[in-house]
Amino acid sequence: MAETDHGIAYPVPKINGGSDRYSYSKNSNFQRKAIDCAKELINKAIAEKLDVNIFASSKTFRLADLGCAAGPNTFFAVQNVIDAVELKCQGQGESCQVPEFQVFFNDLALNDFNQLFQSLPPERRYFAAGVPGVFHGRIFPCDSIHFVHSSYAVQVLSRVPKEVLDKESPAWNRGRINYSDSPDEVVKCFKAQYAKDMESFLKARAKEIVLGGLMAFIVPGRPNGTPHSETFVNRTTTLLGSCLLDMANKGKVSHEKLDSFNMPTYFASPEELEEFVERNGCFSVEIMEIQEQERPEPKKLSSTIRGGIGGIIKEYFGLEEEISDEIFDLFQKKLEEHSSFIFESGNAINLFVLLKRVV
Amino acid sequence: MAETDHGIAYPVPKINGGSDRYSYSKNSNFQRKAIDCAKELINKAIAEKLDVNIFASSKTFRLADLGCAAGPNTFFAVQNVIDAVELKCQGQGESCQVPEFQVFFNDLALNDFNQLFQSLPPERRYFAAGVPGVFHGRIFPCDSIHFVHSSYAVQVLSRVPKEVLDKESPAWNRGRINYSDSPDEVVKCFKAQYAKDMESFLKARAKEIVLGGLMAFIVPGRPNGTPHSETFVNRTTTLLGSCLLDMANKGKVSHEKLDSFNMPTYFASPEELEEFVERNGCFSVEIMEIQEQERPEPKKLSSTIRGGIGGIIKEYFGLEEEISDEIFDLFQKKLEEHSSFIFESGNAINLFVLLKRVV
Repeated sequence: MAETDHGIAYPVPKINGGSDRYSYSKNSNFQRKAIDCAKELINKAIAEKLDVNIFASSKTFRLADLGCAAGPNTFFAVQNVIDAVELKCQGQGESCQVPEFQVFFNDLALNDFNQLFQSLPPERRYFAAGVPGVFHGRIFPCDSIHFVHSSYAVQVLSRVPKEVLDKESPAWNRGRINYSDSPDEVVKCFKAQYAKDMESFLKARAKEIVLGGLMAFIVPGRPNGTPHSETFVNRTTTLLGSCLLDMANKGKVSHEKLDSFNMPTYFASPEELEEFVERNGCFSVEIMEIQEQERPEPKKLSSTIRGGIGGIIKEYFGLEEEISDEIFDLFQKKLEEHSSFIFESGNAINLFVLLKRVV
Repeated sequence: MAETDHGIAYPVPKINGGSDRYSYSKNSNFQRKAIDCAKELINKAIAEKLDVNIFASSKTFRLADLGCAAGPNTFFAVQNVIDAVELKCQGQGESCQVPEFQVFFNDLALNDFNQLFQSLPPERRYFAAGVPGVFHGRIFPCDSIHFVHSSYAVQVLSRVPKEVLDKESPAWNRGRINYSDSPDEVVKCFKAQYAKDMESFLKARAKEIVLGGLMAFIVPGRPNGTPHSETFVNRTTTLLGSCLLDMANKGKVSHEKLDSFNMPTYFASPEELEEFVERNGCFSVEIMEIQEQERPEPKKLSSTIRGGIGGIIKEYFGLEEEISDEIFDLFQKKLEEHSSFIFESGNAINLFVLLKRVV
């Protein structure tokens, strides 16, 4: 496992850069839908929960999008927030001047910031900045951010738990790339890693967000009390794992590499998230809502997953482009064959969470 | 002339990205020397001219490096500033807590920010952000920056003046790539463009820098009253222009393209800079010093120029790598042949300017 200077264990959750056929920027309509779904709740959150006094003195509203990727979804997300804040200020009459906006686009240093910067909307009404770094640690000065937004990023772990890749451990997750159908020991390791990551994440944000400031995040999740194996996202990656296993059995992908590859993600329930927030103690849960997740048809879904993690898989397994093509063609075929399992019975939900810093 | 969405006319003053043989990051030792030379003055400026009260309430010191390129020079420059501010705070005893530092690395959106972000010093004690955009316009919220640093960037024009590329104009600068030996009409156009750019530059900074905040910039310049043709940097690009002309005469570079190519730079005198600052009216000149410029030997100088503008030339003239090699080999040869003209008689100076926002 390669460690970067950020202490992230390989494979890093880095989406495909650039703007070509398999880039994230061309294959992120699925994630865009989640942002569109959340728009109304963001508007409501800002209209009802945002205290304009927190930015009145500085005349600048500082907004961060964590896990922004290379665009364009992040641009829609931040514009939503800005529109809502402007609307709120205008509604306050002369007592509240519309502030200047500064937007911090955050993602790992390996993110394609060149692509992001070169595709910034020319007509934007905000000052843009890119912030490279791991959001499980501090990335902003204290008391400097008024609103944090994050969509489809907080479910990503800072690392795959060590034990699940350790052949000697009872939690070794052999032959699988997620914890969906794994024994309890494995699921526990993923949950423990997520709890640890959320602890760091909330601790860092509690320093950076001003008192009274808001944080909205959208993550693929799971209803309280349902097994992990029933969620749409887990079923999807389980099927991708079976494609990788087929390819390994044909000798086209290394078995050894497959045994050491796990998706660094965890899909939490509302109960779990509430527990983490309570344990941190600095935030109140203002909104926690379940939203229906988009279910793209097999071809779209295959492209979405390839845009998200195709690059990681290619790099990790050291694959030629043709082998990548073969994997994702097979994946699409399996998605079609198992469409009722994937598209009908799985829980396909997003969790929208709005927190306010109260301490 | 291609216009980007930033309104910059081609050729854009974009240095070579990446980290290969001809990259800026591997060929910027010349510019590094200017930063080292300025270190003592920066320390003095911060020790004597910085009012710690301007950042005491926010507990964050916000520092920007304008025209930062892809590193590593910018990292040395900002570390100098941070060390000096920390020292100053420690000298104030308990009345001044050492703040957190946030550093904004600014350059054009076409700059290689990926290279910059991936080479950030791992042991840095500051929060890093990249800010894409043209520093002749606003790039930060008002009253948000405590210290602006800029080295070897403010001499770059936002565009080549239209007239000098216009065949119908009396200021057409035919057969030359700079204004060094050009008729007065041409020099006037370059000076007018520089005056306009400095006006925009200072106007934007006067909004962004807090009252009492400082701006230090280092530019290659020229002593009061000396002709442009005597400066080291102009003589160097004149020689590069003659190489391009030789190549055009051999049919290896387009004559037409050569006639429409001018370096977007102007080298001001202390008097000129003082005049611009006075006209703006928001800053006092706290320090204005002439410093000796490094004069690298021909091979180094050729690599430095190639690292700085080799990419622009290659792209603008549509050259194969071999032709670029040939141009810069010829350039090195000419630098050797004309070494007394270039290295001995030219004025080789940098101007160090420290401004304080007073209005």
